[in-house]
Formats: sequence, C-alpha cells, structure tokens
Amino acid sequence: MSDPTAAMRIDVERLWCSLMQMAEIGAGAHGGCDRQALTDEDRKGRDQFVAWAREIGCTVSVDEVGNLFAARAGSDPSLAPVLIGSHLDTQATGGRFDGVYGVMAGLEVLRSLNQHSVVTRRTIEVASWTNEEGCRFAPAMLGSGVVSGTYSLDYAYSRQDKAGRTFRDELQRIGYLGTVPARSRPFAAMFEAHIEQGPILENTRNQIGVVTGIQGAYWLDVTLEGVACHAGPTPMELRRDPWRAACPIIEGAFQLATRQAPWGRATIGDVKVVPGSRNTVPERLVVSVDLRHPNRDVLEQMVSFFGQLVREAASSREIASQVEKVWHMPPTAFDPGLTDSIERCARELGLTHCRMVSGAGHDSLHTAQFAPTAMIFVPCAGGLSHNEAEAATPEDLAAGANVLLRAVLAAANRIH
Amino acid sequence: MSDPTAAMRIDVERLWCSLMQMAEIGAGAHGGCDRQALTDEDRKGRDQFVAWAREIGCTVSVDEVGNLFAARAGSDPSLAPVLIGSHLDTQATGGRFDGVYGVMAGLEVLRSLNQHSVVTRRTIEVASWTNEEGCRFAPAMLGSGVVSGTYSLDYAYSRQDKAGRTFRDELQRIGYLGTVPARSRPFAAMFEAHIEQGPILENTRNQIGVVTGIQGAYWLDVTLEGVACHAGPTPMELRRDPWRAACPIIEGAFQLATRQAPWGRATIGDVKVVPGSRNTVPERLVVSVDLRHPNRDVLEQMVSFFGQLVREAASSREIASQVEKVWHMPPTAFDPGLTDSIERCARELGLTHCRMVSGAGHDSLHTAQFAPTAMIFVPCAGGLSHNEAEAATPEDLAAGANVLLRAVLAAANRIH
Repeated sequence: MSDPTAAMRIDVERLWCSLMQMAEIGAGAHGGCDRQALTDEDRKGRDQFVAWAREIGCTVSVDEVGNLFAARAGSDPSLAPVLIGSHLDTQATGGRFDGVYGVMAGLEVLRSLNQHSVVTRRTIEVASWTNEEGCRFAPAMLGSGVVSGTYSLDYAYSRQDKAGRTFRDELQRIGYLGTVPARSRPFAAMFEAHIEQGPILENTRNQIGVVTGIQGAYWLDVTLEGVACHAGPTPMELRRDPWRAACPIIEGAFQLATRQAPWGRATIGDVKVVPGSRNTVPERLVVSVDLRHPNRDVLEQMVSFFGQLVREAASSREIASQVEKVWHMPPTAFDPGLTDSIERCARELGLTHCRMVSGAGHDSLHTAQFAPTAMIFVPCAGGLSHNEAEAATPEDLAAGANVLLRAVLAAANRIH
Repeated sequence: MSDPTAAMRIDVERLWCSLMQMAEIGAGAHGGCDRQALTDEDRKGRDQFVAWAREIGCTVSVDEVGNLFAARAGSDPSLAPVLIGSHLDTQATGGRFDGVYGVMAGLEVLRSLNQHSVVTRRTIEVASWTNEEGCRFAPAMLGSGVVSGTYSLDYAYSRQDKAGRTFRDELQRIGYLGTVPARSRPFAAMFEAHIEQGPILENTRNQIGVVTGIQGAYWLDVTLEGVACHAGPTPMELRRDPWRAACPIIEGAFQLATRQAPWGRATIGDVKVVPGSRNTVPERLVVSVDLRHPNRDVLEQMVSFFGQLVREAASSREIASQVEKVWHMPPTAFDPGLTDSIERCARELGLTHCRMVSGAGHDSLHTAQFAPTAMIFVPCAGGLSHNEAEAATPEDLAAGANVLLRAVLAAANRIH
C-alpha cells in the first residue's frame, strides 16, 4: 500500500509569495529587511503570521516572552506535538530569508496538509521565537533560550536596547506579552529550516544540507602589552612592539583552524590598538578571536593550543600576554534519528544533499536542550547573510520545505 | 692667550630651578605638565619667560603668530644674530622638559654671559616658538612653520581646536598677537637643545647627542579589502580575509626598517577593522604605517619597496590593496659647520657624545629652511617623552646647556 502523502509537494509559488509579503514589512532600502525584535515592524510581522495561522484554522498562543505557537491539532492529543520553528525578527540591514524562511516553510507545511486533508496523529505547531537576532536586545536567541531554561524570564525582561527601553516594556507595547508560561513542554521533534548563511552547499552543488549539529565557539580577548614609544626616536631593536607577537598569533590561529579542516574556524573580527596614534608604537593590542569547531574535544584542544601559541609568541618577544574567555557556546549535536530522517527524505525526493554542521547559532541550539531537534539548510547566494543582498531561489526554498514536510509527517505519525 | 670664556659654566642649580618653576605652570596630576598652546597656562608660561628675559636686560618682541624673541644685543648690530630656540607649549599630558628645556637653556646661556660680562659680536636671541606640539591646534611646529614660509599666516590663524576656537582668536585672547612680521630674517646660526625623546643616548651611555639632522617620514594608509562573512559558516579556504595579507605586510614593514638599521623605522600605530564585529570576518582593514629614515634616497626606496610588498602580499591572497600617502616630511640635514662645532664643544668639555639623527620633528626642521641650524640632545630616562613621567637629570641638562653656551659663543663671535 503506497502512502498517499508521498506525492504531496509544497506550493512553490505560495511559499515564495508569503516570503515576499513578509519582506514588505520593514522593507530595507536595498532589497532587504529591517524588522528588529519588538519594533512596530516586528508587531506587523507577528500580526501577519497570526492572521495567516488563523486563516488555516490554527490555534495561536503567545508565551511570556512573546514566542508565538500556531497549532494544527492532531488526532491524538495525548501525544507530544511536533514543532517547526524559527524566527521573524531580522538584523537592522538583514535579508528576506534568514529566520523568516523557517517560519513560512512551517506555515506552508500546514497549508499543504490542509489542502490534502491529511490528519496527523500528533499536533504540529509552528513557532516563531522572539529576538533570535539579538541586534536590538542582546543576547541573541533569547526567546528560545528562556524556554530552554538557559535564561531566566527576569533576565530576558530586563534586557535593554541602546535607547534604554526594556525588553518587557517593548514586548508589552507591541501587544505580544503573552500569559502562556515560557517553559519547555514535551515535543516529539523540532525542525528548523534555514538558509545556510555560508557557501558550502553552493560550492558543493548540494540543494539540501542535513545539519547534524551546531559548531561550538569560543570568544577570546587576547591582550598583548608592550611599551609605547614615539615612532621616530626609538630604534627597532629597542622596541617592545606588541605587533611583533600579534602577527604570528593571528597567523597561528588561522593555521590552527585550517589544520582542523573542513570544520575548524578562526576569525579575527576586531583589534583594539591603544593608544591608536599614527606615530606611536602601541602600548597594547586587544585582539578578538573567534574559534569554532563542532566537536567538543577538538574545540577544547584548539583553545588550549591557541593559549600556548599566545604565551610562546608573546614571551619570546618580551610582550606580556593574557587570554580572556569572553563567551563560550558548547557544540550542539542534533538528534541522530531526526537527521537520518531528513537525509532519507532528501534522498527519496531525489535532491542532492550532504551532511554538515551549522557555523552560526540558531534557536535549535536551545530547543535541542528539551526536544529532539534537527535542521535543514538550503543554499543562499554566495553564502551571504546578515546583509540586504541575501538571496535564495524559489526552487531551493521549496526543496527544503518539501524535505521539511516529509520529515514532519514522519515524526507526526510516529507513535513513540 | 687663553680664552677667558672657556672656563665659563652654566649654573646647574639655576637652570634646574627655572625648569621646575616653569613646570609649576600647568602642573599635571602625575608630575608632568599641561600647558597646551594658547591656553591660560601657555599665557602664564609666556609671561614668566618675558619677565625673566626682561630681568636680564633683553628686548622682547612678539611676532604675528605669537613667537617670542628675547634679544641680548651684540657689539655689532650689522651682523646677523645667533638664535637659540625651542618651545614652551606641552602635550595635554606632557613632561617638564620637552621644549621648555631648549628655551630655559637659552635664557641660562644669556644669564651666564651677563654674569661674566661677556660682550658678543652678534646679538643672541632666545626664541620660544608658538604651538610646537600641535595637540591643540594641528599641525605641529606651526609658529616656526609660518616663519619658514611652510604655512601662510592665514592658514595658521584659521586653525581650530576641538571646541571650534580659532588660533587667531585664542592668540589674541591670551594677549600674544604681536605685530612683528612672522617672516624669516638673516640668522648666523640657530641652536636647539632638547631631550632626546628616545633611548639611544641612555643605551649607548652618551651625555650629548650631536644631531646631524631629522629623519624623514612617510605616513601611509594601507587599505586591504576582502569579503566580509560570518565567522561560523564560512570555511577557512573559502574566505578572503584581509588579515591574511595584513600580517605579512606588517612583518614585512618591520623587516624593511630593520634592514636599514640603525636609523630605519616602521610603526603600525593604528589599524581600523571594518566592520569590527567579533563574529564577522572583516571586509576591510586600514593599516596606518609610519616609515622613517634620515636619508632621502633610502626613505624613498623603503616606501617604494613597501608598496611592492603590499601589492604582492595582497594580490597573492586575492585581497584588493591601496596605499595612500597621507603625509610626508622630507629628511632635514643640519648645517655641517654647526654640528662640527657642537661635537668639538662636547669634546672640549670632556663629555661623552655621539652623532645621531632626530626621530621626531622639531622647530629646527623649519628653521633649517632659513638659517644654518643644529640640535643638541641630552638623555631622558627610558627614552620616555610625551608622558608626565618624562625625566632628565640636572647634570645631563647642564651638560647640554654647557655645550650650547660654548657653541653659541663661537657662532656669536664669528665675523662671517
């Protein structure tokens, strides 16, 4: 007996239209979006999501941090629901797909089920998590982080934007301060579809990324302290210039990451030069280092190796050094059953695919704490994201949504 | 017949006391001085200088940019005078010796001549140049620069401080807008005594630096343009990270200067990282490079070599590069007759001495355009300057003033 749902496909055009309609809310000057968390644009985006969800018969609930859940009831209310989630907020000069794709793909899955009158055993919910981007209220992934217990509700409420407005006041102002407890509930599975935000799928010509986890990251501040002096009178050999240590340290970090190819990463996002005067040998450099790897042990090894590199490069040049751990995100491993299921769905749909890890953080990082979680990536042009020029093709977006539909169906009909 | 002036010596204590008295005007919180150009403190310093000059019978004149000249008449008014000069203004957190030493040593020379009733053939003038530091009104060495014709009077008048006050208004406000034309006149010689502001004399255990010239400098802005991307998702081998070019360029600049030891210098005073975000591979770096050498040809060669280094390091890493010449100070060669005379005086006084070039700019850079010029350096502790902790010993300061006295006497009694 063949499964009648096996032939179901997402409506490419309808998915694309809903993405483009959402993109008009807070449309940027250069083709992107500015729909930062808890702004009027965020409210309009939420209103649109709620309207669409109700249109297709969903029950919408709002929790204490403003996370939205649109539920399509299953036949057995005693079973834990399946969750599809991502976010609707964007960076200040964000793109049209980051986050919003995962939510729109979720709604599209529900629309397809309605269209084919499919009744699933489990309830399926589409979540839009509050403040994933973190650009207005730090930290990022705050809404899902409260639900996972990573952050307390009070902590979330007290976050302030640059103008000093609190998260709670703004959430209330836009009318999305809900009453449902922002706590985890049992879920059978949680899926997040997302653009890759990197160049791997494009470069390997794969349409689907089967995401097995999220890289761990360490943010380090390396302080190198030498002796400031005037650029003119001090001979080279009498200087204690912190750049002498900084260059081999920066190059060493790159080598360290390259040795852990293809998943090791090292980024020097910023360097503070003190005093930063054109004709003064700097007294101090603060080098910001971002190290990443999806394997916990390898990441720890990279950090420890890097620390040794800093000590040696600095002390051999009479430069004082200090490595401060500013932030740490442990690697997240997604649920193997769900990643297998995603891979199988991609194969059955005849889509080119590969296993990969996510280099960026996502709400799935938090949901993985309380629910079996996995992600589906689709290519984006040039790997560009957090940029108004962010682009993805309707075909790739639909391919990802079809994998999502199939994997969600499988999970929603599972009994255990 | 022995020269009776040969036994004349500077009064160490009197020189030290006048330095310490001047240091009380605008005394800093950490033992230094804040007597920035055209402030009330500068006025008080000028008032003190004028009072001391008149006390010893000098005629004081003020020119249109506020340069002060205290003249002790010689026996033959038809001969061009001998000039001793430096500056009384300081950095915001400046020391007690930078500049003020050259002016106080000049006054002390005149006091000694009075004390021994020495009549010189030529008039001797002690100048205090306006706004040498340039920290309040850019550029530096403005007063001497107008006299040399490097800057126009209108240009100087229109300079503004951070609060928008003009040089002219402030000069008038403190009562030192003079009427003497700020133009060069014939001088037989110009001497400037100064602390070294570098560590060479201290390191080579010499008491006197016979300064043969001032290093030339190029200020370059090296722009390295790659492609910004997220620190997580982009594999190392797919990045176009401008740091890949910046490290070999910075290290190459140091090698370039070291190959031109002992006078070559390369300083990376600042680096601007765009966008400067911790988890973003920078799109652009702007590296500020200061290259110095006292020989014009060698300096030009260093700059051309450096340009080649930038092009090669950048293009081999697919990074776009641009080198902009922000400022150039050609090397200054001092008058060989005067440097020989200074060296002879140091030898006759039994003082340890060496020939050297100045790494920093001084008013002598401008006076060398219109008068035979030379400088005398004395050691300062640790080579430290532009710092409240700047220090020099009374003995070293007196040694320099004794060389000055002797060299000035020789010049002031010369007929041609």
